[in-house]
Amino acid sequence: MRVGVIGGGQLARMMVPPAVELGVDIRVLAEVEGSSAAIAATSVGDYTDAETVLAFARDVDVITFDHEHVPQAVLAALVQAGQAVRPGPEALAIAQDKILMRERLTAMGAPVPEWAVVRDADGLGAFLDEHGGRAVVKTPRGGYDGKGVRVVAGAHDADDWLAAAGERGLLVEELVVFRRELAQLVARRPSGEVRAWSLVETVQRDGVCAEVFAPAPDAGALPEQARSLAERIATELDVTGVLAVELFETSDGRLLVNELAMRPHNTGHWTIDGAVTSQFEQHLRAVLDLPLGDPSPTAAWSVMVNVLGGPSNATMQDRYQIALAADPRVKVHSYDKTSRPGRKVGHVTATGTGLDDTAARARATAGFFEG
Amino acid sequence: MRVGVIGGGQLARMMVPPAVELGVDIRVLAEVEGSSAAIAATSVGDYTDAETVLAFARDVDVITFDHEHVPQAVLAALVQAGQAVRPGPEALAIAQDKILMRERLTAMGAPVPEWAVVRDADGLGAFLDEHGGRAVVKTPRGGYDGKGVRVVAGAHDADDWLAAAGERGLLVEELVVFRRELAQLVARRPSGEVRAWSLVETVQRDGVCAEVFAPAPDAGALPEQARSLAERIATELDVTGVLAVELFETSDGRLLVNELAMRPHNTGHWTIDGAVTSQFEQHLRAVLDLPLGDPSPTAAWSVMVNVLGGPSNATMQDRYQIALAADPRVKVHSYDKTSRPGRKVGHVTATGTGLDDTAARARATAGFFEG
Repeated sequence: MRVGVIGGGQLARMMVPPAVELGVDIRVLAEVEGSSAAIAATSVGDYTDAETVLAFARDVDVITFDHEHVPQAVLAALVQAGQAVRPGPEALAIAQDKILMRERLTAMGAPVPEWAVVRDADGLGAFLDEHGGRAVVKTPRGGYDGKGVRVVAGAHDADDWLAAAGERGLLVEELVVFRRELAQLVARRPSGEVRAWSLVETVQRDGVCAEVFAPAPDAGALPEQARSLAERIATELDVTGVLAVELFETSDGRLLVNELAMRPHNTGHWTIDGAVTSQFEQHLRAVLDLPLGDPSPTAAWSVMVNVLGGPSNATMQDRYQIALAADPRVKVHSYDKTSRPGRKVGHVTATGTGLDDTAARARATAGFFEG
Repeated sequence: MRVGVIGGGQLARMMVPPAVELGVDIRVLAEVEGSSAAIAATSVGDYTDAETVLAFARDVDVITFDHEHVPQAVLAALVQAGQAVRPGPEALAIAQDKILMRERLTAMGAPVPEWAVVRDADGLGAFLDEHGGRAVVKTPRGGYDGKGVRVVAGAHDADDWLAAAGERGLLVEELVVFRRELAQLVARRPSGEVRAWSLVETVQRDGVCAEVFAPAPDAGALPEQARSLAERIATELDVTGVLAVELFETSDGRLLVNELAMRPHNTGHWTIDGAVTSQFEQHLRAVLDLPLGDPSPTAAWSVMVNVLGGPSNATMQDRYQIALAADPRVKVHSYDKTSRPGRKVGHVTATGTGLDDTAARARATAGFFEG
C-alpha cells in the first residue's frame, strides 16, 4: 500500500504520521534536499519534468499532491502510463485555474461572488463601474497565501498583470463585504463516500491564514449549508482526497465560495489534535480508496494558530524549553523549515471546553515562537 | 534536535509520528533492512557492536532505545564518548537483569512478590517447600512476552535453566494469586519532572499483552498508590524516558511490582489515541529533557487490543476495506511487519463513554485482522 506524494512541503510532512500509523508506505518527490518532508523523500527532482515524475511514480499505487502546481501535461503522462492520480487531472485543472473554477462553480449553481474575465483596462473599468468602484483582481494561476490577488480601484490598477496575462485575461470579482471567512473541508474517495469535518472560522492576516476556530462559533444554519455545498462540489467536480472550500459569510448571512483547494489545507490542521480522523489520515484513506474515518471533533473547541517566521533565525525548537512548559496541554507542530519572515514554520493547536480560553491558550503558546 | 533510537521495532516506529510533529530529527539503528521503523532507519547494524553504535551515535544529541538489550559494554563506550544515553546504563542495568531489579526494588521498600536466587535443585526445592509447592522461575536476562518465565512445581523442573545459568542462578518468585494485572506508566526527564498516565488494567494471553483498559476500572485507591510507587521508582532508579511498572493486584487488594520496562510499552499504546500526550511523544520530550506534556486522558475510556499474526500471510492492510468500514471511529495501527503466528503486527484503539461498548468496538475491529 504505497502512496507517492509530489511535493515535499509541510502538507506532505504531515501525511507521514498517519501513514506510519496505518502502515502505508509513503514516498515523497521533493523539490530539494532537506525539504520539510525529507524523512519520506525517496526522490528529489523537478515536478514539472514528466520523466522525473514518471520514474518516481513507477513503484507506488497512487500519486497525490502536496500542492496544485504539477502541470497538466505531466498529469496526463501519468494517467497515460496507467498511474492512479488522485485528485485526477480534470479536478485539479479547476483548482489550478481560478477562471475555470469560477466557470465550473457558476455552471453548477454554487454561490460565488460576481465575477468576470477582463483582458484590458476598459474591461476592468467597466466591471468597476458596475461594482461600486472597487474590485479584486486575481491571476488565474499560481497564486497562494494572498499572492496573485490585488484589490483595485481604477481601470489601470492592473495594467502590469493584464500585460502579462495576455489573451487568457484576469479574473475580476466583486469586493465582497463579509462578516468573516469560513472553511468547509470534506474528503471523498473514488467510490463516492464523502465525509465532512466541522465548518470552521478562519482569520487571515495579510492574505495568510492566521487562526482557525473549530467549529465556527454562532453559525446557525451555516454548517448544514456549507457541508451540503462542499459535498456537492466534491461530487460534481469528481474530487478525490481532501477538498477545502474557502467561504465568505456575507454581512447579510449568505455563503459565497471564495477558493477551492484539492489537498489537505491549513484550515484543517486542527483536525490532527481535534478530530477522530485528521485531514492527513483521511486524505491517505481517500486517495487509496479505503473506507473513510470519522471526522467528528474530539473536543468542544479546537483553536489552531499558525507560527510564522520572524526576523530572527531562531527555530521553534530553540524556544521549546519555555514554550512547552507554559501549557503542557497545547500541541506544538514544527515543520522543520528554515525560518524566514512570514514563512509558515509550524502551528499550535489547543483544545478545550470554552472558545475564549482555548483561543487564549493557543495564542499564548504560539506567542513564544514569535520574533 | 536529533534523537537516535537503537532498535528498529514497532516502538521505534511509533516514535516517528510525534518526532515529525515536534520537528525532532529521529534516526534509527535497525537490526535489518525493512525493519518496522525503516522510514527513520539511517543505519543498519549490530547493536552489540560498540563501533557500529558509536558511529551511529556520532550525529545525534541523545541515544535512546526500542528495546533493553544493548550490552552494558556498549552503553559504557557511549557514555565514555560523551554521548547522552537515556535511560542511562545504571538504570538500564536494572531493567536488563531481573535479579538486580528484585534487589533494587526490595532495597527501596517497593512491594514485590517473595523471591530468592536459586542455583540448584535443592535451593528451588526449599523455596517451593516454603511457598505452597508452586513458584515462578525466571531467567535473569533476555526474557520478554512470557519467554524466560516458567511455572514450576518440583525441585527439578528447572534443571535445564539452572545448568545454563551457572553461578548467577535464576530468580524464583512466589506464584502470586492475583485478581488482575495492572500497569502504571510514567515519564521522567533528567531535570526531574515526572508525569504519570492513568493506571491501566492489562489482560495477558500466553504471556503476551492482549488487551488494555484505560483507566483500570473499579480501582478504588489503587491509582494513587500506583502512581506514587511508579514515580518513586523512576526517581530512585534515575530512570529517564518512559518507565512501565507492571503490577499485580493481589486477591486481597495489594499492589506488587511484577516487572519494569524502561521504554515505551505495549500497555501504553492507548495513549496515542486516548491521551493528550502519547507515551511516544512523552518519551521523546523526556530523553531530550524538554518539558513534559499533559498525560491526561481525552476520553472516558480507551481500550487497546493487540493484533497478532495468524496462520495466513495476510497483512492488516489486506483487510482494510472491511475492517475500516465497520467502525470509522476505531484507530488502526499497523507495524508493517511480516505476519507470523503470535507476532505482534499491530493494534487497535477505541475510545468511548462506556467501558463495555468501547471494549466491544475495539475487539470487533481487531477481529477482522485475525487468522
